Amino acid sequence: MFTIIHQDKHSQARTGLLKSAHGVVKTPAFMPVGTQATVKTLSAQELLDCQIQIVLSNAYHLYLRPGREVIKQAGGLHKFMGWNGPILTDSGGFQVFSLALLRKITEKGVEFQSHIDGSRHFLTPEDIIATQLDLGSDILMPLDECVHYPAQRDYAQESLKLTHLWARRSQEAFGRREQTDDGRLLFGIVQGSTYRDLRQQAAEELVGLNFSGYAVGGISVGEPEGLKFEVLEHSLKFLPQEKPRYTMGIGTPLDILKAVEMGVDMFDCVMPTRHARNGTAFTKSGKLVLRNALYINDYQLIEEDCQCLACRHNYTRAYIRHLVNTDEILGVRLVSLHNVYFYAMLMQKIRAAIQQDRFLELKKEFLEGGLR
Amino acid sequence: MFTIIHQDKHSQARTGLLKSAHGVVKTPAFMPVGTQATVKTLSAQELLDCQIQIVLSNAYHLYLRPGREVIKQAGGLHKFMGWNGPILTDSGGFQVFSLALLRKITEKGVEFQSHIDGSRHFLTPEDIIATQLDLGSDILMPLDECVHYPAQRDYAQESLKLTHLWARRSQEAFGRREQTDDGRLLFGIVQGSTYRDLRQQAAEELVGLNFSGYAVGGISVGEPEGLKFEVLEHSLKFLPQEKPRYTMGIGTPLDILKAVEMGVDMFDCVMPTRHARNGTAFTKSGKLVLRNALYINDYQLIEEDCQCLACRHNYTRAYIRHLVNTDEILGVRLVSLHNVYFYAMLMQKIRAAIQQDRFLELKKEFLEGGLR
Repeated sequence: MFTIIHQDKHSQARTGLLKSAHGVVKTPAFMPVGTQATVKTLSAQELLDCQIQIVLSNAYHLYLRPGREVIKQAGGLHKFMGWNGPILTDSGGFQVFSLALLRKITEKGVEFQSHIDGSRHFLTPEDIIATQLDLGSDILMPLDECVHYPAQRDYAQESLKLTHLWARRSQEAFGRREQTDDGRLLFGIVQGSTYRDLRQQAAEELVGLNFSGYAVGGISVGEPEGLKFEVLEHSLKFLPQEKPRYTMGIGTPLDILKAVEMGVDMFDCVMPTRHARNGTAFTKSGKLVLRNALYINDYQLIEEDCQCLACRHNYTRAYIRHLVNTDEILGVRLVSLHNVYFYAMLMQKIRAAIQQDRFLELKKEFLEGGLR
Repeated sequence: MFTIIHQDKHSQARTGLLKSAHGVVKTPAFMPVGTQATVKTLSAQELLDCQIQIVLSNAYHLYLRPGREVIKQAGGLHKFMGWNGPILTDSGGFQVFSLALLRKITEKGVEFQSHIDGSRHFLTPEDIIATQLDLGSDILMPLDECVHYPAQRDYAQESLKLTHLWARRSQEAFGRREQTDDGRLLFGIVQGSTYRDLRQQAAEELVGLNFSGYAVGGISVGEPEGLKFEVLEHSLKFLPQEKPRYTMGIGTPLDILKAVEMGVDMFDCVMPTRHARNGTAFTKSGKLVLRNALYINDYQLIEEDCQCLACRHNYTRAYIRHLVNTDEILGVRLVSLHNVYFYAMLMQKIRAAIQQDRFLELKKEFLEGGLR
């Protein structure tokens, strides 16, 4: 299911192949976020052109709209959105805890009101697995509680109990196996806030349950930058080498480089598409805020030698600046195409460097070049 | 410059070829509206895929943002927006009269405040021709006053004097010729409100000036539907057969059929892209309001056998409904792709039918099929 192809000699970075029901993912891999069954502004065909291998979607959002039946009847999420590659679905636990109204959390599950129309819902961990199975997700995530920073130790400890109870029930619902017959995977999520012993306990308990892979959750939730990577590195220590590791919601190109160095294999982040909505483009020498007057008559491409659809078709900074400045959707589209491709290329370069035991050199080159 | 290939035997409809500096346009032709140097949501590559031949842009909007110098320095509008086909630019007179603030109209020109930032501007008819020449437009339109309905006869008559003074000065600025050395064209615009004698006078005066083509303006400005086509038909009577005729801002598929029957060759309208923004799709059996709950689990294509990018890639009504319903940009994009292609195909079918002297049959088939 997961094969490590090469382990970097000078860091924890590794490159591998993750087999899923909809194809093999080369790791380290970046998953653009398609919360509502669409990576914002982009078509499935464009995602392929961006060299994206796998996308992330969200069970909470799809459960509310259009509803699980609509997608099931469509033949699953892949058919519904026209994407034939692998899909990882987040359980939506994070959204229940952050977006939904009037939450009531019990051991049984979560009761909440939709953030859209106020309708009442009750979902058990089992419902959430069943929803993801209906969606036809390739990699499922169990319901968990993502604890924000700072959290009292007592609260973090109690929350962990709930998260692990739900993890066990999710696995039960998934059929107590490392993968389904058709090759779908269920990951465990390591929580425990910033408490080292809780993180260790969380990792060890979940590893005991033998998930297909492990996510480190509850980081990048408001804690200081240094602490984030300390907690991540500490959590990774207790996870088995032979299973894929995923940091949820991370991050900037620099964050990704740091996490890869620690041995992380999978990433998702809204950053490439969210930044695009403000007209901010990623380049290897740093971000360009294309809305700025600076670019009004800058007729260069976003990035020289870039093979993204926007640069390949010779769209200039001046034109994109005009589009962003006049709120024209094509502007957001062009920057999204560039940014998502930029992330895909970042991962491709990372994989190639690991293969040649020169990941640390690549990281150094990137940092010296101005990448952030 | 304009060659009529075939005149329908049973109506005034005709099909022809309009030669421009950026290629030949088969008429009757539809021009999607790219007010701000972009047909809303679509890339230049997608317009080609939609089989669009020529796009319309707007001198007033581009003069304000990004400014004529920015586009001139880019190498013209074609290079700026990545569209190598013909471009017709509207003078922006309509926008000065409808959008801009604190207008002061004199024989000399128009003084106004930008609707965007309140900045003051003064433009003569000569400035507006010069702007369009800087943009590198293939077909230029002179500054005119588009009189709204209803208009007092006195007002309409006075306005016509101004429009014709400006028309003469525009032609003077253009160099008193039917086309520039590099093949650019300047059209005249027939105004005169709903007054038959004023329309006749307007057409005759402009024809005396020998423009490259003639637009019928000041229709579809609030008058009853019947009157609109009466005024159009009457205006066309006084225009030479051998010159292209263009109705500005028209219209629905049905309007286009009616106008083609009267001998109109060129059309522009925001309808395909504006309707797309509400999730309304054109089909040969009428419009689909895809936002409706009716489509929640309708897994058909927008239109069977349609070769637009959205239908070709198997995006379903249910998926598009979900996207529109969740304000996802991909929804607007897919419907825009379909609608613009639909208009292009409508024109293609019209041209083929004229060629075979069966335009009236085609119109009848369309109407019986439910096209509106």
